[in-house]
Amino acid sequence: MSAPFDLDPRLAGDTLLVGDLALCRVLLMHDARFAWLVLVPRREGLVEIADLPADDRARLWREVDEAAAALRASAPCDKLNVGALGNVVRQLHVHVVARREGDAAWPGPVWGSGTAEAYADGVAERLVEALRAGLDIQA
Amino acid sequence: MSAPFDLDPRLAGDTLLVGDLALCRVLLMHDARFAWLVLVPRREGLVEIADLPADDRARLWREVDEAAAALRASAPCDKLNVGALGNVVRQLHVHVVARREGDAAWPGPVWGSGTAEAYADGVAERLVEALRAGLDIQA
Repeated sequence: MSAPFDLDPRLAGDTLLVGDLALCRVLLMHDARFAWLVLVPRREGLVEIADLPADDRARLWREVDEAAAALRASAPCDKLNVGALGNVVRQLHVHVVARREGDAAWPGPVWGSGTAEAYADGVAERLVEALRAGLDIQA
Repeated sequence: MSAPFDLDPRLAGDTLLVGDLALCRVLLMHDARFAWLVLVPRREGLVEIADLPADDRARLWREVDEAAAALRASAPCDKLNVGALGNVVRQLHVHVVARREGDAAWPGPVWGSGTAEAYADGVAERLVEALRAGLDIQA
């Protein structure tokens, strides 16, 4: 249960911690333009989804679904975007992003689009609390 | 098994048919810059992954994994990218893209990047044949 797991420093630096699901660490991107979660399987050395054994792969996608549902409940949106890219940060991670028509990147992808904007005081923390409640994660 | 299913005309127009898996139609994007598959669950009225019942959702992700493996075997790459966006084409579809360092969009996402380039004669058809073999799809 406590295998070593080091979060990529760029992911750590760009995000707030929501908490841990059975497989993944859930992070909120510190970017007020989009309600944007990143899920990182807590295993060492993963790059591709295929690097996970089949049961963990199924669990990853279930947790992506759970994260999407919690995100949609906390941040009303017109479309969810899910992506696993890893072209820059190699550590396997999956993005789940609540998109609104007319948002800063609409209808393009959020990845590589413009510059992150800081959340106003307390806003990200309230979103994190709502997400924890939706995901049944203890603070 | 033969419920009605209409493929979005933009997806149809941009792709070649690889074939049908148990849930998804598999398409090859007609863009020589990237080896790029699109998987479309053959159900009417789907927009979000959550619109699929849980067993079909699990099947979707298994088929995405299978498509990724077949793609990697047919088109050597440095990284696979998986994405479900749907901001432009609403019909639920999942992209699986073989990325190479230095390709036309590297390290950014392929979506919204530049203009598709035509495959040279026969190249896409040979790739489709290799993908069918890898996915055990009959022509």
